[in-house]
Amino acid sequence: MNYHLSDLPERDAKPREKGCTMAMDKGLSIREVEDFIEVAGEYVDLVKLGWATSYVVPNLKRKLEVYRAAGLPVYFGGTLFEAFIIRNQFDEYRRLLDDFGMNIAEVSDGSIELNHDQKCEYIRQLATQVTVLSEVGSKDDQKIIPPYKWISLMQAELDAGSWKVIGEAREGGTVGLFRSTGEVRSGLVEEILTKIPFEKIIWEAPQKEQQVWFIKLLGANVNLGNIAPNEVIPLETIRLGIRGDTFMDFLNLEKIKK
Amino acid sequence: MNYHLSDLPERDAKPREKGCTMAMDKGLSIREVEDFIEVAGEYVDLVKLGWATSYVVPNLKRKLEVYRAAGLPVYFGGTLFEAFIIRNQFDEYRRLLDDFGMNIAEVSDGSIELNHDQKCEYIRQLATQVTVLSEVGSKDDQKIIPPYKWISLMQAELDAGSWKVIGEAREGGTVGLFRSTGEVRSGLVEEILTKIPFEKIIWEAPQKEQQVWFIKLLGANVNLGNIAPNEVIPLETIRLGIRGDTFMDFLNLEKIKK
Amino acid sequence: MNYHLSDLPERDAKPREKGCTMAMDKGLSIREVEDFIEVAGEYVDLVKLGWATSYVVPNLKRKLEVYRAAGLPVYFGGTLFEAFIIRNQFDEYRRLLDDFGMNIAEVSDGSIELNHDQKCEYIRQLATQVTVLSEVGSKDDQKIIPPYKWISLMQAELDAGSWKVIGEAREGGTVGLFRSTGEVRSGLVEEILTKIPFEKIIWEAPQKEQQVWFIKLLGANVNLGNIAPNEVIPLETIRLGIRGDTFMDFLNLEKIKK
Repeated sequence: MNYHLSDLPERDAKPREKGCTMAMDKGLSIREVEDFIEVAGEYVDLVKLGWATSYVVPNLKRKLEVYRAAGLPVYFGGTLFEAFIIRNQFDEYRRLLDDFGMNIAEVSDGSIELNHDQKCEYIRQLATQVTVLSEVGSKDDQKIIPPYKWISLMQAELDAGSWKVIGEAREGGTVGLFRSTGEVRSGLVEEILTKIPFEKIIWEAPQKEQQVWFIKLLGANVNLGNIAPNEVIPLETIRLGIRGDTFMDFLNLEKIKK
Repeated sequence: MNYHLSDLPERDAKPREKGCTMAMDKGLSIREVEDFIEVAGEYVDLVKLGWATSYVVPNLKRKLEVYRAAGLPVYFGGTLFEAFIIRNQFDEYRRLLDDFGMNIAEVSDGSIELNHDQKCEYIRQLATQVTVLSEVGSKDDQKIIPPYKWISLMQAELDAGSWKVIGEAREGGTVGLFRSTGEVRSGLVEEILTKIPFEKIIWEAPQKEQQVWFIKLLGANVNLGNIAPNEVIPLETIRLGIRGDTFMDFLNLEKIKK
Repeated sequence: MNYHLSDLPERDAKPREKGCTMAMDKGLSIREVEDFIEVAGEYVDLVKLGWATSYVVPNLKRKLEVYRAAGLPVYFGGTLFEAFIIRNQFDEYRRLLDDFGMNIAEVSDGSIELNHDQKCEYIRQLATQVTVLSEVGSKDDQKIIPPYKWISLMQAELDAGSWKVIGEAREGGTVGLFRSTGEVRSGLVEEILTKIPFEKIIWEAPQKEQQVWFIKLLGANVNLGNIAPNEVIPLETIRLGIRGDTFMDFLNLEKIKK
């Protein structure tokens, strides 16, 4: 840090199991990746190449090299997995992961119908090859999943071999964990946390109000995902209670007054 | 493309008459232009220097050189044309186009009152000098143009020499084709398309929901404009049906199952 | 300027007392700072390192050097001042300003309760060390300050040594001068201006609609703050009446017709 401020919440050092920030690259140039790493590299734990943008970007190989040279784990968005599954190309997807040297993969069913046993079987198979992140929640705002179901889905996916599970929100933060207004389904989150350890969940929270909500509820070291690259520094200040939104939340005023 | 995915909609190669993406540069630096070209150059067909930003940016000449070296056609926004017209400086505008070596110009009347015969006369004259794009629709959200009028305006402008006509939406997507909420005036669009060939229209669709709407209605190869530079890659995935929003729209599931 | 357009509002040259644009850097890379200066350097008067982002960004010293080499005054956001004050570390804050060679400081109380005499005392002390900007208005959207109170607070802070006072809006433009919808509290602004000279106030106006509102009311040379770096060029065109939003506002049509 550039100077001393007392009484800030403690943050784990990398590699972290909690307090992770997963950022989404939806088409950065090589220089933009370098700039992102310069500014936010030490605050980012995972980089997702959003949905299937990796199919069209012309700089994929170099981009992977730049992220890896900086020690940043990078993976393809779950929608790419789904694009292969719906085309009956799971084997091609496994080869793709090898061809590009990926060591993380995301398994999701946000855009397709997938029997949950089948989904867990994909997780089980991929977990022999890479670290698996799996995502719960539909991109379809008409599909409301009740809390007990979120919990059983998450637990089954962790049992099948997922390293962590992701709560779906889309880039815009309007489905899954969120109402179509972007408001957090708070009862849902609280009930999930009675059963699933909080370090096992990455909450997608692309909008600032959502980040603030999770940090107020779960503290500085909650895992948050789908963060825009230029919002990683702002998010870190929200975690530390040095932006207006969480300014009074982590202060021990009694201790300071002594 | 970086790997194989079957059953994607076909996209025309450049130079395209349909499936064009027009991006808006509202003040990029030279390096940002280079980065934009690196990432999205092959998916962009036209670059508009938004409204009259070309008046104030200090890097105009170099920027034009960089776009041209990459083979990307670039032109001044229609508001600049209007700024000259309202000052009775049409001849100066024609010289300006020559001075900067422009070979495309936009004719619009979104901010000024312009007799339509006069507008078509400007199109006719400019068409002897450059390729003309002309824009229909007001920036004023109080001016509602009925569908038959959109059609006759568009046809007259094409007859006067416009290469394509643009449906006005402003950068924010809140007027012209759109209600003030950003919602598409769908009956209007459908009626226009009964008379004007769809490759002759560029629909301004700066917001993702609008892009999705046009692509669902008109397919991968609809012409879309006013796209932010860092949204060109996301747009291309929406066109191809590999983002959640259009994931199931272009799939031939019967064919895949065989 | 790149070419001639007649009948534009006059803009003061730098250093300006009015018509200032204060931009907010919330975590730019060094190259992004350079690009920002290339594009917008001559249109920016002040750069704020947003709230306490200066605590976490790894490139702080180099960034300060780059801004200073370009002649752009740069300062820490007011929330950083507050973070030191609530920790009883005012002396450390004064040393911090010296350590980083800052010659501007912002005094605010948007996130903390601060007796106004005490706030003015901080202003008085800091004014012996640096140029002081002070901010009026709470970040808390429940705290509505009536107009006469805004005026007396602003006057007291100017009397205590503030160079200019800032009307609080937050980065998102939803508190202080603005209703939670982002709409300007127009009666408030008009009443303030009956008492405080308009060049002594910087209005925070991060959203385009707010910028347009202030420019329509107060003209091209109003001081505006919390502008995103890539919105400085668009803002300059709004000031000059060459974007749709203010296109007809500064034109003297009688004069043009002659």
